[in-house]
Amino acid sequence: MLQNCDCSGYSREEKGSRMPSQHHTPLPDGMPQLRVMPMPSDANIHGDVFGGWIMAQVDIAGSLPAVRRANGRVATVAVNSFLFKHPVFVGDLLSFYASIVRVGNTSITVYVEVYAERNRLQAETVKVTEATLTYVATGEDRKPRVLPPLVD
Amino acid sequence: MLQNCDCSGYSREEKGSRMPSQHHTPLPDGMPQLRVMPMPSDANIHGDVFGGWIMAQVDIAGSLPAVRRANGRVATVAVNSFLFKHPVFVGDLLSFYASIVRVGNTSITVYVEVYAERNRLQAETVKVTEATLTYVATGEDRKPRVLPPLVD
Amino acid sequence: MLQNCDCSGYSREEKGSRMPSQHHTPLPDGMPQLRVMPMPSDANIHGDVFGGWIMAQVDIAGSLPAVRRANGRVATVAVNSFLFKHPVFVGDLLSFYASIVRVGNTSITVYVEVYAERNRLQAETVKVTEATLTYVATGEDRKPRVLPPLVD
Amino acid sequence: MLQNCDCSGYSREEKGSRMPSQHHTPLPDGMPQLRVMPMPSDANIHGDVFGGWIMAQVDIAGSLPAVRRANGRVATVAVNSFLFKHPVFVGDLLSFYASIVRVGNTSITVYVEVYAERNRLQAETVKVTEATLTYVATGEDRKPRVLPPLVD
Amino acid sequence: MLQNCDCSGYSREEKGSRMPSQHHTPLPDGMPQLRVMPMPSDANIHGDVFGGWIMAQVDIAGSLPAVRRANGRVATVAVNSFLFKHPVFVGDLLSFYASIVRVGNTSITVYVEVYAERNRLQAETVKVTEATLTYVATGEDRKPRVLPPLVD
Amino acid sequence: MLQNCDCSGYSREEKGSRMPSQHHTPLPDGMPQLRVMPMPSDANIHGDVFGGWIMAQVDIAGSLPAVRRANGRVATVAVNSFLFKHPVFVGDLLSFYASIVRVGNTSITVYVEVYAERNRLQAETVKVTEATLTYVATGEDRKPRVLPPLVD
Repeated sequence: MLQNCDCSGYSREEKGSRMPSQHHTPLPDGMPQLRVMPMPSDANIHGDVFGGWIMAQVDIAGSLPAVRRANGRVATVAVNSFLFKHPVFVGDLLSFYASIVRVGNTSITVYVEVYAERNRLQAETVKVTEATLTYVATGEDRKPRVLPPLVD
Repeated sequence: MLQNCDCSGYSREEKGSRMPSQHHTPLPDGMPQLRVMPMPSDANIHGDVFGGWIMAQVDIAGSLPAVRRANGRVATVAVNSFLFKHPVFVGDLLSFYASIVRVGNTSITVYVEVYAERNRLQAETVKVTEATLTYVATGEDRKPRVLPPLVD
Repeated sequence: MLQNCDCSGYSREEKGSRMPSQHHTPLPDGMPQLRVMPMPSDANIHGDVFGGWIMAQVDIAGSLPAVRRANGRVATVAVNSFLFKHPVFVGDLLSFYASIVRVGNTSITVYVEVYAERNRLQAETVKVTEATLTYVATGEDRKPRVLPPLVD
Repeated sequence: MLQNCDCSGYSREEKGSRMPSQHHTPLPDGMPQLRVMPMPSDANIHGDVFGGWIMAQVDIAGSLPAVRRANGRVATVAVNSFLFKHPVFVGDLLSFYASIVRVGNTSITVYVEVYAERNRLQAETVKVTEATLTYVATGEDRKPRVLPPLVD
Repeated sequence: MLQNCDCSGYSREEKGSRMPSQHHTPLPDGMPQLRVMPMPSDANIHGDVFGGWIMAQVDIAGSLPAVRRANGRVATVAVNSFLFKHPVFVGDLLSFYASIVRVGNTSITVYVEVYAERNRLQAETVKVTEATLTYVATGEDRKPRVLPPLVD
Repeated sequence: MLQNCDCSGYSREEKGSRMPSQHHTPLPDGMPQLRVMPMPSDANIHGDVFGGWIMAQVDIAGSLPAVRRANGRVATVAVNSFLFKHPVFVGDLLSFYASIVRVGNTSITVYVEVYAERNRLQAETVKVTEATLTYVATGEDRKPRVLPPLVD
């Protein structure tokens, strides 16, 4: 569907002070999986952080609850969706939240949200990215491995 | 749909010499957008290349035809699908092919395929990844920009 | 004082299962400044993460509350103390907590604690590092700048 | 003590041409442990080199005489003090001098000084950093190891 | 010979639009060994890509046909010549072509050419570098190893 | 000439304890231009440091006296020769010596030698690499610039 919208969402931030509420989005409750600050070497000439750098961090963030659920090694098998809602800048402080949304026999699907805090006069928090990825538990031989039962 | 399959595709390589033809997949015609060899520093402890590193390269590879079509700067707005079909190892030689599959007013959707050549006694070529990403042409102000008309 | 102790603290973890409570140290309340996972390229041949890599992350983590308090650019002027209590391994998930412990005219002193979560069968949390660093608010000319008054 | 001084030392360079002698500080006699030039990717947006990057290099420089004295592997256990006296810029040529100042049963304390040479019309040499770090000799099991006797 | 020419070749591009043909150099036929785009972190402050970064890529590119011919591990033993004909910029798309020019008992000499495509309004292709390197086939013990016979 | 020798020089170290004197090569007098220790991320799977990484360091080392002589910016225009005499390992301490061997109107040719110190029971120093590179002084416009006269 993104393919039909001509991506006006991407410029929502720039388009307007009409949406101040978005900029005061509070961070979700709970602990982020990762919290990192992109460096100048992660950016292009325009000072924006490479989309590919963000993808790599999202992949790691999503793998953390998957590794815990699998109680061992996992491999990424698919990105089901990935939306860049706002540009990310060098110096943003990024929080990556991840939660498991589906568990199969060997696979674990994780939803990842990324929020940027920008340290300016008026601190603002912007949800910059959301994605869904699927991991599969693997054994020493790299073959899929049946997930252990949940204990409580 | 990947979410229902338990990812048996991931282990197709390992499962069998039943599929020799896949391992002799010839490279597509034409020039790859990128052709790179992952280094030890791009791998995890198991020697497999991080999914996130591959995502980052796919993002760059897909942006190249988008930049040419947009005749200028683009930003990644979405990953529509991304399938890791086989693991990638340090020392694989990776070729990234990309072609535009849809053009909107300001957006360009690109299909990217990644092939690994493994330099062993019996050289084999394996299609390891395929993905579809959407980019949007942007101006100096980072707002979407209408694509220039095609000339021929 | 560390200089007189022959560093037995460093091996407390190894010395004993006599100290199980340490391994179940809960993470502090509140949001860590950073939360990152060291990669193979951050480690030495023995698989331990370089002390220098940890120092660099601690420096960034401590600068975050300093930047907020200074409402602008800061520079690190001193590490007052820095204790490596336990080794850090590739694959540990590290949380960096930082709080301001002293504010001068132009300087801000920050206490940073680092906790490692190790994703093994029995999840354990270990406090691996603690440090105190002093930053100074600086202006465009890199000279010290008087801190803005606190508002509430 | 640094904590009471408001860090005027940090701006000594900027404050004045009143201190020309400092800028002609000769390098110490003997061989530096390390001699490196920070790259653009080691700097922040302002062109200054990250304090954390310098810390990481100081840690390596200090470990070199410790490794020789321990005749084997060492681990960093503490930074006893670390003073950033002047900012470091991309393109500075940095020399790291290190000497052992105290030896315990298993620990080695090292004093590290860093000098920057700036390749401008009037070459100047500035002492930018000094630090004291403690390392401990370790065995295969990562436990402290008694230092070998000195032979001569 | 380069040593006597005062390197006017280096500025051929800048000197003139007298040489438009050079800028429309087509890429050679066949598949490049590598095809990569240097990033901001590969450049100096002036935005030019470090000569050393290019050398490192040329070394990898040249090793690929050597590894195939040696059917195994090789080590670089010499750079026989290396000419930087034009500067390389961040954002250039670089294609590395390599072909074996001499085979000894244990050594393989490879000629490498590098072309830059610059994605501007008028796409241009410039041959930026050419080099000849010698590799030697090595065994597990790092000693030279006699090359296997050619089969066809 | 290297091309005719089948590179027996490369294995001189391995071939014999017949050449103990080589392993006690003292470091040259004077200050090395660079002194660095390659990290695990600079090595290939076999633990040897990439030839390309060494080339990149040699390029930087050689540029230092060239920048001083040119009193400003230089660009690498040629590698006239480059000999890898012995493999370099992670953990070696490398010293890069460079001296100007020829000066033209705009060009400066530099000879670079690299020595490795290996911190084992019997410390040994091995000359691992020697190279000759030519740099050209350049102006803001990247065109060759006449070298300033020598003053004394």
